[in-house]
Amino acid sequence: MRAWHNPNLLSFAAATQRFAAGTFTPRDLLEQCIDNIERLEPTVGAFVIMDLEAARKSADASTARYRAGQPLSPVDGCPIGIKDIIATCDLPTQMGSPAFKGVQLLHDAACIHALRTGGAVIVGKTVTTEFAIGLARGTTNPFDPTRTPGGSSSGSGAAVGAGMLPVAIATQTQASTLRPASYCGAFGFKPTYGSFRMEGVHVMSPTSDHVGVIGANLDDIWRVASRIALSVGGSGYDFMQGAGPLPLAVQPKRLIRLYTRGWDEMDDTAKHAFEDMAESLAQKGVTLISKHTDTRVAALEESLEANIDSALEIVVYEMQWPFADYIKRYGDLIGPRIHSMIKQAQCMSRDHYTGLLAMQRNLKKQFTDLINDTQSDGVILPASSGPAPVGLDYTGSRVFASYANLVGFPAFTLPLLQAHGLPFGVQLFDVAGHDSALCARANWVIQAFL
Amino acid sequence: MRAWHNPNLLSFAAATQRFAAGTFTPRDLLEQCIDNIERLEPTVGAFVIMDLEAARKSADASTARYRAGQPLSPVDGCPIGIKDIIATCDLPTQMGSPAFKGVQLLHDAACIHALRTGGAVIVGKTVTTEFAIGLARGTTNPFDPTRTPGGSSSGSGAAVGAGMLPVAIATQTQASTLRPASYCGAFGFKPTYGSFRMEGVHVMSPTSDHVGVIGANLDDIWRVASRIALSVGGSGYDFMQGAGPLPLAVQPKRLIRLYTRGWDEMDDTAKHAFEDMAESLAQKGVTLISKHTDTRVAALEESLEANIDSALEIVVYEMQWPFADYIKRYGDLIGPRIHSMIKQAQCMSRDHYTGLLAMQRNLKKQFTDLINDTQSDGVILPASSGPAPVGLDYTGSRVFASYANLVGFPAFTLPLLQAHGLPFGVQLFDVAGHDSALCARANWVIQAFL
Repeated sequence: MRAWHNPNLLSFAAATQRFAAGTFTPRDLLEQCIDNIERLEPTVGAFVIMDLEAARKSADASTARYRAGQPLSPVDGCPIGIKDIIATCDLPTQMGSPAFKGVQLLHDAACIHALRTGGAVIVGKTVTTEFAIGLARGTTNPFDPTRTPGGSSSGSGAAVGAGMLPVAIATQTQASTLRPASYCGAFGFKPTYGSFRMEGVHVMSPTSDHVGVIGANLDDIWRVASRIALSVGGSGYDFMQGAGPLPLAVQPKRLIRLYTRGWDEMDDTAKHAFEDMAESLAQKGVTLISKHTDTRVAALEESLEANIDSALEIVVYEMQWPFADYIKRYGDLIGPRIHSMIKQAQCMSRDHYTGLLAMQRNLKKQFTDLINDTQSDGVILPASSGPAPVGLDYTGSRVFASYANLVGFPAFTLPLLQAHGLPFGVQLFDVAGHDSALCARANWVIQAFL
Repeated sequence: MRAWHNPNLLSFAAATQRFAAGTFTPRDLLEQCIDNIERLEPTVGAFVIMDLEAARKSADASTARYRAGQPLSPVDGCPIGIKDIIATCDLPTQMGSPAFKGVQLLHDAACIHALRTGGAVIVGKTVTTEFAIGLARGTTNPFDPTRTPGGSSSGSGAAVGAGMLPVAIATQTQASTLRPASYCGAFGFKPTYGSFRMEGVHVMSPTSDHVGVIGANLDDIWRVASRIALSVGGSGYDFMQGAGPLPLAVQPKRLIRLYTRGWDEMDDTAKHAFEDMAESLAQKGVTLISKHTDTRVAALEESLEANIDSALEIVVYEMQWPFADYIKRYGDLIGPRIHSMIKQAQCMSRDHYTGLLAMQRNLKKQFTDLINDTQSDGVILPASSGPAPVGLDYTGSRVFASYANLVGFPAFTLPLLQAHGLPFGVQLFDVAGHDSALCARANWVIQAFL
């Protein structure tokens, strides 16, 4: 099997080799991005706002640092976009909401501070659905403008998938990094829960919110995530282990293949694409175990299906702050989905919520035990239930991405699959803390199939 | 032994009984506060800003709700002050820093939203040292204007200790709630780490920051803390267990008495005051075990002394965000202590920091095991090393309060001790999650000694 390949992707890692050689500069790379933005942005609509003059100035400063042989970090000169629920000190942060029109915050979010001080070139703010959970804001899929790019990090996925940027910062509370990356033919990563400090990222659910990265390849993603982890990583919980250079490829010996209810959402073409990948992996010597071959996996699938709907309940309960306040202050400037979620939350008891958190802890333990007991190197499943659906209002099913999110496991999506000429991703995840080991396996999969 | 009693304290809980009877109103209580503020504030300087007209309007609305027999919550009508590192949508939040002069944030912090929607009457913002860690801002001790009120919640401690407010919201990263409460003759409480959502509270150290409450008595503190816990409590970590009405008094059977290095900081008068209390407890049937009577306690004391300095190292490392940015942006508007902490942080490796977090986890486990293995009902020790020292620049030793903070345990200070005619507190703490059981023991101590 030869995997699908997104020809648009614009690699930062490849460019840095030429930066070092002096044959290409951060300014040149930025101008490539700007050319693509000028050509594609009118159709895609990935950006809320850009400041190209500031970006050029920043790229020129980076160019000077490479000339002096002194880049600030492995992300120096990397053009990035920032999801518009993440605070920036220079550009407004409008949350995809008319209630926050023109709001200018004072300081960069912790993750953005890490990237800016590492020399990253901030090109603009990318479109988010309303507060990353409400109304979609019109961004289109770079492979078909009648289709959603996915959400909630719609602009981050579309900008990278279209080749307008090598990297964009995203967030994920259920599926908001992996889904748009999958639909837009980009690489996506969300680290172990707690890996990055969240200050300056608009909160939805403190137990479920992650910062994620969407990028042109594993190296781009890993160096950006590593820069954040090494600068402001962790806060007493978990860390993104192994932050640093891209881990070398390591072949997985055994993977758990999960079906989940997501499998029933896929059409035959998409199922075949994934089955082909699974078969090829087996031919290359990777053992796949599943509910059909292992009763322990079957038991886990049952637990997952019994509990996955509760993931959204946790989010809904925690959204009471600040969204109950927003509804009171901003009324109908807040969209109908958020109104209805807050109504639902107000009918939930604290005891019910506490029970949901206990379920989350138990599921995490069961999942971790299974992976350890079966000596598996992680889990493989689609990142979305096929390619992007038609329409811009519905940003697609969250189901495949939501399992790893609920238990806080690190997860990658790799843009290796296609159906009907449209991309979707293969997802790999592993237990909390195994970010680097997982990245090494993802690297092997990429090298085996691209 | 008859304990010291602070005659200034203005009880909200006592007032609510008269609200219910219709013989006294929230507006009457507010006017009592305002009378005391007018009389004392020129000397004490507990407030940064007040909005008395808004407070009167809010108290009148509360009065109407009690008349209709429909108070919003157990804190309806409670006049509160809010430490000025906590966001309020109506009053500026200036962080005790000239760099934040006049800064008006958009939304209430999560904890403030909980209190405001419960009908609490917000009187004003209380003085904090610079970002709760830097320069002191001139508030004086209500018992002696030549002495510090303690910090960093200087204004919250002084306002309650002086009787200008029944309750003020504080924060604690090392000692910033218990120390000012102790020096100002007030009750203080910080719940189990993770009990309250921290959004809208200026971050110093995500692993160490807590919201705390300073109040006129246990009931006032517990009802305010419970309102926060029940509204926006928790975020997947720990909760303030037993939130609700004040737990009934329960006599502790056995307490661990800790000496710590703090004991060497106390003068003989202060030591005698604490010894008297310990002796009286023994006479009342409470067994005290200590390093002199139990080798396990001696071993814990050793671990504590070997590691307590690392508590500040964790804070310093985590302060890099946002303070490195603030120093770059605001230069000498940021005080010298914060400059030197950031310099120190930039010499620390991530591995060193990771080691500190491991130490913190180990210490928490050792401490928990000791309390469980000895079947103790908690720990008793002073809340500060005697009464407030002379001078306004140094806010006093943090040592006694820092142990419970480092391991995230719930802790109370009770204003029952005095030396040289000045108050200081007796501290009780217990393992994480035992907030309510600890409050029941504190209630017994109060009833036994007042």
